[in-house]
Amino acid sequence: MGRVTERRRVIRIRDGAVSTRPDTLVAEEPLEIRLNGKPLAITMRTPGDDFALAAGFLVSEGVLGRADELANIVYCAGATPGGGSNTYNVVDVTLAPGVPVPDITLERNVYTTSSCGLCGKASLDAVRTTARWPLEDGFGDGRDGAGSPVRIEPETLSALPDRLRAAQRVFDRTGGLHAAALFTPDGELLDLREDVGRHNAVDKLVGRALQQGLLPLSGSVLMVSGRASFELAQKAVMAGIPVLAAVSAPSSLAVDLAAETGLTLVGFLRGTSMNVYAGEQRLALRTAVGGA
Amino acid sequence: MGRVTERRRVIRIRDGAVSTRPDTLVAEEPLEIRLNGKPLAITMRTPGDDFALAAGFLVSEGVLGRADELANIVYCAGATPGGGSNTYNVVDVTLAPGVPVPDITLERNVYTTSSCGLCGKASLDAVRTTARWPLEDGFGDGRDGAGSPVRIEPETLSALPDRLRAAQRVFDRTGGLHAAALFTPDGELLDLREDVGRHNAVDKLVGRALQQGLLPLSGSVLMVSGRASFELAQKAVMAGIPVLAAVSAPSSLAVDLAAETGLTLVGFLRGTSMNVYAGEQRLALRTAVGGA
Repeated sequence: MGRVTERRRVIRIRDGAVSTRPDTLVAEEPLEIRLNGKPLAITMRTPGDDFALAAGFLVSEGVLGRADELANIVYCAGATPGGGSNTYNVVDVTLAPGVPVPDITLERNVYTTSSCGLCGKASLDAVRTTARWPLEDGFGDGRDGAGSPVRIEPETLSALPDRLRAAQRVFDRTGGLHAAALFTPDGELLDLREDVGRHNAVDKLVGRALQQGLLPLSGSVLMVSGRASFELAQKAVMAGIPVLAAVSAPSSLAVDLAAETGLTLVGFLRGTSMNVYAGEQRLALRTAVGGA
Repeated sequence: MGRVTERRRVIRIRDGAVSTRPDTLVAEEPLEIRLNGKPLAITMRTPGDDFALAAGFLVSEGVLGRADELANIVYCAGATPGGGSNTYNVVDVTLAPGVPVPDITLERNVYTTSSCGLCGKASLDAVRTTARWPLEDGFGDGRDGAGSPVRIEPETLSALPDRLRAAQRVFDRTGGLHAAALFTPDGELLDLREDVGRHNAVDKLVGRALQQGLLPLSGSVLMVSGRASFELAQKAVMAGIPVLAAVSAPSSLAVDLAAETGLTLVGFLRGTSMNVYAGEQRLALRTAVGGA
């Protein structure tokens, strides 16, 4: 518990000079997520927020969408045979009565459909048909969707990387963590999580929101410290987040998923520059030359 | 096949000016790996070198160690129902007769042992007991191991990041790829792979080496463009690679695995600086002040 960092001896070499000192490293430990007592997945994660991580993982997989669908999450006391000490590396999620328990082979359900074997299109279809909340929020065209349309200024987006970085506490000590944060469309920081695994950081954010009854996150912007992969875009869509912004590049399949689900996807968000790959209607864009 | 990059329309914003143009993105598609016809794992990867990826994945999991243990790898022609076109996203690996077929729940075997439920120590034990080739190569103390002892100059290590970067062809166009490369202890580039997934890039390297009969890679250095996680250290150990160098931070569990298996682990390899976390015997270190 709380083992977010660990100390190890390190030999530093600087311009040929050698010295030995203690160093702070980001902690990494396996976490097994069980669903109603049955093993579901193992992820390598930074300890902490483990219940949120498990809950967020199940939101991403379409199992959970509301706090009342979740009956209980506990660390498995019997994780070590013979009644040894609890490793705090196994959590068991109990669904509320009546909530459908998915097949144990969740991963396959997400990426394959009967229509197309295994391909990118099938992956997109699986997310679109599993998502509980459409992202179509009338973005700026006068219609109202489930929530208020999100509209965001490019200047506000440009301010997010510095705010994300400023709020990263563990990264400063270890340099070894991915960060994910939720912001309002006005750029106010709502929550931030750090983890050795980029997916875990997002799952922890989403899981906490589920536990607090905040899903769908239809009025928020998800910012990630690295690249925008298909799986990160999937997690945004499954949590009802309308805007995903990344410091680095997106993949082709992340862009395709954004275009198909109405997600606003921004990449290479650096200084006053950015690339908008989909959902540009949510951005308050001025004309190219001279502004308007 | 060969869909390493894809083109998409992007809206560029630079200091408030908006323009639209085509952009090159790194391709991401799911790959299902089957073992003797049974589904084993799905990974999101950049298409290309798929047979090497599958073979390298199986080396990392301890299933394969020699080229002659591998009978065949094919794309599943029947990947699309009704005899549609092949998606080239499903590969089937056939083991040679007599090669043990592992349990289908490979992931669990690696991370859990009966001695300790689920914890970092169990993960280390699982790798150590599964590894086919000990990394103890007599590093510089006069003994000879399975191969020649690897001994490397810090100056040689310092040159690797630039060589890795210079050899990355797809990154220049997309900014969206992780790279992994094999070098000789003298800094000569042996092979480089790029992929949206950091693990995939290493699996592709290792799989190609298996196919060419080059395992264990006891005379080589593995360099990765990002961080050194437990799983990357595991892949190095399982392929018999004695030195892992990373541009960014290692995790606690990666350092622990390196210390336990004899892997030399170097992080924050930037300019003339680096941190050595384990296996420093393979580095030709001079004394701290003035050199010797």
